[in-house]
Amino acid sequence: MSHKNLHDILQETPATTLLRNSRIGMYVYPVVAPEFTNWRSEQQAWRDSAVLFDQSHHMDEVVIEGPDAAKFLEGLAINSFANFGTNRAKHFVPVSPEGHVIGDHIMFRENENKFVSVGRAPTSNWLLYNASLGKHDVKLTHSPRSPSRPDGKLVTRIHYRFQIQGPEAPKIFEKMNGGPIPDIKFFHVDWVNIAGRKVRALRHGMAGAPGLEIWGPYDEKDEIRAAILKAAEEAGVDLHQVGSRAYSTNTLESGWIPSPLPGIYTSPELEGYRKWLGADSYEANGSLGGSFISDDIRDYYTNPYELGYGIYVKFDHDFVGRAALEKMKDQVRRKKVTFEWNAEDVMNVIASSFKKGEPNKKWIDFPQPNYASSSFDKVMHGDKMVGLSMFNGYSFNERCLLSLGVVDADVQEGDVLTLIWGEPNGGSGKTSVERHEQAEIRVRVSPTPYASEARENYAESWRTKRTA
Amino acid sequence: MSHKNLHDILQETPATTLLRNSRIGMYVYPVVAPEFTNWRSEQQAWRDSAVLFDQSHHMDEVVIEGPDAAKFLEGLAINSFANFGTNRAKHFVPVSPEGHVIGDHIMFRENENKFVSVGRAPTSNWLLYNASLGKHDVKLTHSPRSPSRPDGKLVTRIHYRFQIQGPEAPKIFEKMNGGPIPDIKFFHVDWVNIAGRKVRALRHGMAGAPGLEIWGPYDEKDEIRAAILKAAEEAGVDLHQVGSRAYSTNTLESGWIPSPLPGIYTSPELEGYRKWLGADSYEANGSLGGSFISDDIRDYYTNPYELGYGIYVKFDHDFVGRAALEKMKDQVRRKKVTFEWNAEDVMNVIASSFKKGEPNKKWIDFPQPNYASSSFDKVMHGDKMVGLSMFNGYSFNERCLLSLGVVDADVQEGDVLTLIWGEPNGGSGKTSVERHEQAEIRVRVSPTPYASEARENYAESWRTKRTA
Repeated sequence: MSHKNLHDILQETPATTLLRNSRIGMYVYPVVAPEFTNWRSEQQAWRDSAVLFDQSHHMDEVVIEGPDAAKFLEGLAINSFANFGTNRAKHFVPVSPEGHVIGDHIMFRENENKFVSVGRAPTSNWLLYNASLGKHDVKLTHSPRSPSRPDGKLVTRIHYRFQIQGPEAPKIFEKMNGGPIPDIKFFHVDWVNIAGRKVRALRHGMAGAPGLEIWGPYDEKDEIRAAILKAAEEAGVDLHQVGSRAYSTNTLESGWIPSPLPGIYTSPELEGYRKWLGADSYEANGSLGGSFISDDIRDYYTNPYELGYGIYVKFDHDFVGRAALEKMKDQVRRKKVTFEWNAEDVMNVIASSFKKGEPNKKWIDFPQPNYASSSFDKVMHGDKMVGLSMFNGYSFNERCLLSLGVVDADVQEGDVLTLIWGEPNGGSGKTSVERHEQAEIRVRVSPTPYASEARENYAESWRTKRTA
Repeated sequence: MSHKNLHDILQETPATTLLRNSRIGMYVYPVVAPEFTNWRSEQQAWRDSAVLFDQSHHMDEVVIEGPDAAKFLEGLAINSFANFGTNRAKHFVPVSPEGHVIGDHIMFRENENKFVSVGRAPTSNWLLYNASLGKHDVKLTHSPRSPSRPDGKLVTRIHYRFQIQGPEAPKIFEKMNGGPIPDIKFFHVDWVNIAGRKVRALRHGMAGAPGLEIWGPYDEKDEIRAAILKAAEEAGVDLHQVGSRAYSTNTLESGWIPSPLPGIYTSPELEGYRKWLGADSYEANGSLGGSFISDDIRDYYTNPYELGYGIYVKFDHDFVGRAALEKMKDQVRRKKVTFEWNAEDVMNVIASSFKKGEPNKKWIDFPQPNYASSSFDKVMHGDKMVGLSMFNGYSFNERCLLSLGVVDADVQEGDVLTLIWGEPNGGSGKTSVERHEQAEIRVRVSPTPYASEARENYAESWRTKRTA
């Protein structure tokens, strides 16, 4: 019997059971080669020289056009659209009626009535569903993320999307532009010249260093990349293309959590949405992993304040979830931190997979040990759970494993807590999980973003506006 | 200035310098997804249940047709063709005039005048070159290995090629064949039914357990795979598709060294061949890695006897290298072994990448730490080099790192030697190498093949015929 939608599925299987035992496999960064040089050198390059990220494939893209485009989007955004001019970008965050984060996208305003929105599927689906309600004069075009296992099949997208980052990146920009590039403000867009074409460029800084994100028609991708590589060579910059293995770890140094669980499984107001979401949707197939086990899916929801997006919340407009956030805004709440993993405890976990005949701990895969679309590892202070680790990875720059997550308000930087690594009872039914036992790993609570470069040199954003 | 061929390149750059600093990056298993479930469970499946290897992409394929096909091939083979009937396969090994291994392929005889040969590029190139001399009435069709970084481009081949292996594999064969399959002898070919098609099947056993290799037109690939997966499901077998990360490690348990350096850089008789080999050839771009450093490329050559192929050598025919092998055959020589790496020393190497501000050892990447097309790590007994480690990897089945290589004749099973891990002077110019220091890792000399299953249950082949 095949299910038609998420709502039907949830009638038979609780959300936590469904997602915890998803058979979808690793959440990968598809199509892009695993390594161009090697992932250690690629990580070093974003700190020391320059990198080229190929972001053409791992994200959904939604183009929103029409006379109601801005009004439509504003009604789904915690962000204000008051200052959202053409050629600017926003870190767009929609929440559920209860104020829980659904996801986040980077949204570009190309002109008065046209936006391009880029990120994981939950935000795309939410946009598509709301447009389908027919209350706004908007037209949406959806380019879903590329297949995880293309297996030699042709993959195309609407746009290529590159980021060029790192301390040496400006030398490349100037060379490829044929002269100084415009002085673009953070999250503003301007045009640069590449290979005789005018290309849109967003001033960004994902890996904790200044950079540009550029995009254009997908069929120009190879030509543009070749021009970037040539410019780097001519500028004498040791530019590294970054492969899929290193790519996802750049967020550990800059502090963005890419993987909140969409808070859409329980809201009575969202029953229609769950009926709209197909059995093949991210929401029905994404996986939930880690040591934190609750039968109540709501325990995995997060709100924008605890993810560090409080500074985006503007009550200058009506939006889904506004009333909930108004209640939430002055409450004592969890805060986002970086966890620095104790090396000795990490070594003990690894060593357990070198003892034949003895139970092994969950394998820590490098540089990216995450084994689910959304991860939640318990962080304990004695017997009390005081936090959740939500996205982990190894940084060759910092020579340690780091993770991003949330902790209770009274946890302080420098506190040493205990992360429970691995799943109980030998592991869940996820195909990404080998049988294992749980382990304890000490973690030190550290600032977010962890990279001092990102903390000190970032433009105005949530990354530098740390809340107590 | 662009070079036209390998010979020209070698006039300016010694072979060791060229290959040691190749910028080609990791030698990857292309196109196939890194993981389908996870690489630990995929490794376990070939020991415990069943696996599906997709071998369509990582090897060259050469089709050799014509009235002189057998004669042409026999003149390049240490193997006898006397018993090479139609629908059989051989482990085809060509050597240089000096008797050094050029490479190896699996060669299928489809009919009297048609062979299909599958393996790494050096053997393909050698076949293509020899055919180009025009001395034989043969036609060769070459399908080079798929691109290492397809980047979403369409990839096609002449044939798909699957292997189904593991203790539960026979249940799948019977289900997909719709009844018992023919009793095929090892390295013989017969026909089986899959999805209403008659498909060629070679009895094989690459991972140390019985299995079949099947192939057919590439455009039938998806259909055939779907039929195999369905048959496994109906047979109640937990079949794991094996991704590119686990794939290459299966040879560690079965004992085949996939990566000898082609012994073609120095022979005066092969000057014509080196002029034929382009600047873009494997021979001009493949990388050489590891702690063993010599300025004489001949020190990296191996002969068929030390790789365990002595039982193939038959002097019942003329072939390139025959005279050299006749001299070599009774000499005391190195022998192939498995090295079992000491877990404590491995942990110390890994731990070095968790100490900020201190020099790190060469990163051991899991499950496949190789960082070159051909690897040569020194294996020491005190101050004396007594062996070379040539292909390494981690086995979750054995819970240890293993490598395959050669040792001097007087080294005994059980001896504990020291492998030098990493390259001198901070590492070579290969892009796959991050800066590092060398380390010592104790290794225990162990039989080849290492897996007891492979040693005990293999059909007649070099794998079971261990020479003293």
